[in-house]
Amino acid sequence: MYRIGVDVGGTNIAIGVVDDSYSIIGKRSIKTSQVPEIGQMIEAIASGVKELISETGISESDVACVGVGVPGTAELDTGKVMYANNLGFEDEPFLPRLKEALGEPLCEKTYFDNDANAAAIGEYVTGGYTEKNFMMVTLGTGIGGGIIIDGKLIRGVNYAAAEFGHMSINIDDKGCNCGRRGCFETYASAAALVEQAVDSMEKDVDKKSLLWKNCGKVSDLDGEKFFEAVKEKDELALKVLSQYEIYLAEGLTNLINILQPEVLVLSGGITRAAEYYLDDVRSMVLEKVYSRSSKKNTRIEVAHGIKDAGDVGIIGAALLGE
Amino acid sequence: MYRIGVDVGGTNIAIGVVDDSYSIIGKRSIKTSQVPEIGQMIEAIASGVKELISETGISESDVACVGVGVPGTAELDTGKVMYANNLGFEDEPFLPRLKEALGEPLCEKTYFDNDANAAAIGEYVTGGYTEKNFMMVTLGTGIGGGIIIDGKLIRGVNYAAAEFGHMSINIDDKGCNCGRRGCFETYASAAALVEQAVDSMEKDVDKKSLLWKNCGKVSDLDGEKFFEAVKEKDELALKVLSQYEIYLAEGLTNLINILQPEVLVLSGGITRAAEYYLDDVRSMVLEKVYSRSSKKNTRIEVAHGIKDAGDVGIIGAALLGE
Repeated sequence: MYRIGVDVGGTNIAIGVVDDSYSIIGKRSIKTSQVPEIGQMIEAIASGVKELISETGISESDVACVGVGVPGTAELDTGKVMYANNLGFEDEPFLPRLKEALGEPLCEKTYFDNDANAAAIGEYVTGGYTEKNFMMVTLGTGIGGGIIIDGKLIRGVNYAAAEFGHMSINIDDKGCNCGRRGCFETYASAAALVEQAVDSMEKDVDKKSLLWKNCGKVSDLDGEKFFEAVKEKDELALKVLSQYEIYLAEGLTNLINILQPEVLVLSGGITRAAEYYLDDVRSMVLEKVYSRSSKKNTRIEVAHGIKDAGDVGIIGAALLGE
Repeated sequence: MYRIGVDVGGTNIAIGVVDDSYSIIGKRSIKTSQVPEIGQMIEAIASGVKELISETGISESDVACVGVGVPGTAELDTGKVMYANNLGFEDEPFLPRLKEALGEPLCEKTYFDNDANAAAIGEYVTGGYTEKNFMMVTLGTGIGGGIIIDGKLIRGVNYAAAEFGHMSINIDDKGCNCGRRGCFETYASAAALVEQAVDSMEKDVDKKSLLWKNCGKVSDLDGEKFFEAVKEKDELALKVLSQYEIYLAEGLTNLINILQPEVLVLSGGITRAAEYYLDDVRSMVLEKVYSRSSKKNTRIEVAHGIKDAGDVGIIGAALLGE
């Protein structure tokens, strides 16, 4: 059997056909900006799914399920997207409309969920975790994630649990777009790391740092260029990374003091450079957590279930029917 | 049938016989300082339990279970207390020794757990909650609590989950005895409130506040005297309380953004004065939480299952066999 995964993002909508070994055997992409209205988006997804099925040489009856991950609050009991700031949706009956557009037999086996939840399920299933209590913390533009307890995803009373990025670790400090101050994501997301590096570059008036050499102007700095400088042991980049590690460790320690999962998995593009910070972060967390057992602690790992980080969204969504 | 609950505290060890309607029909207390060695404590608990059973006019076969709540890390798989700073215990085989001292038939039905976990179970069972996802946050000298998901207590990988007090909300601010900075309990525990009031009194050089009138010297201030001044609308006390509400709301918002339980219950002596701050805290949380659903949010309530807050420990422990 095959599963269809649809990853609705702010920039692209990616659709993939996933086989039983979690490989993507067919894929297509739609620019989100080309389908700004909900009706257009629903039609584009439904026809994209159908065309991709036929292109891949399978039939709708070979499809075990269609799963859609949306970047917002996916209300499972009504099928509504309650809020998706990047799509501009509020209170939209997304799932019923998609089912209608897909028709029989696909509509009977179509599911949706928040994209971070889908990604957590994707990593949990494909990563072959034997632990029943699992937490994924995704470091991207913001910080999101998912919580699995007793093998089941925790969705929360209004389907917005695991908003780890909006745990304040510094209530009197800088503002977050959620309206609070000091949110974890303003310190420890991938975007925050780049921001911290830019701040340091701007203070480096002699422009001696490799960060300057690697990108010429601050607006060109990204995670990849930052870690190139780290690799070359650039002093400024290492200093920025040291401070970032502290922020990341503080937030992860909070999460572990609250839930103590057996395993806490970090994901997001920035984890490709984990060799430069993961061991430090692990040691800091071990020093900070409330319960310092010599026997057993929360393992901190990097997501490994899905080889290409770009496919997490599709594969996670495809597994929503599990 | 009857259940025995043993609440091991830093000051007293309280033992109670609990009936099927969760009433305590017999109770006795041992000064913890009189049994400083683990062996003495085990003997005192075992003989206390046996004497209380006979005093109450029931027999050991009428006892469904004996539950013990300890203020530390209770390792359920080995029966060891791994760490209890207030008792000075480390790596003590508490449960096996207690079972041996109790002998047949009680040893077959004796359980132990962390005291905050026991209290959470106690409130959950006696409070008649129908919600499956529940969180209790206990405001005392520190802040502890318990998490129930899908009707089951979350104990964590080394039995120390739900250490809510040690979630940092201000990583650069004041130190906590856990070694970190800015822990929630240093701002929002009952002890922290009194400390904040004392700080304000010391700055009130004219000693105009009722806080001064009510207690003469700062060392006499306690939660009760503080809320007497609040009741009288004392300006200084109200100012302190306003700031405290912000701290409490920040921490609760973090917890809700992470887990979104259906209900979050506050407990501890300070909740007797909840009428002075609960509504404000509820509004602040609603304004701060990431997902502002108009339909459904985490309910914030005050523990109500056990009438006398002093009995929570005994009844919670008695329910550990559930």
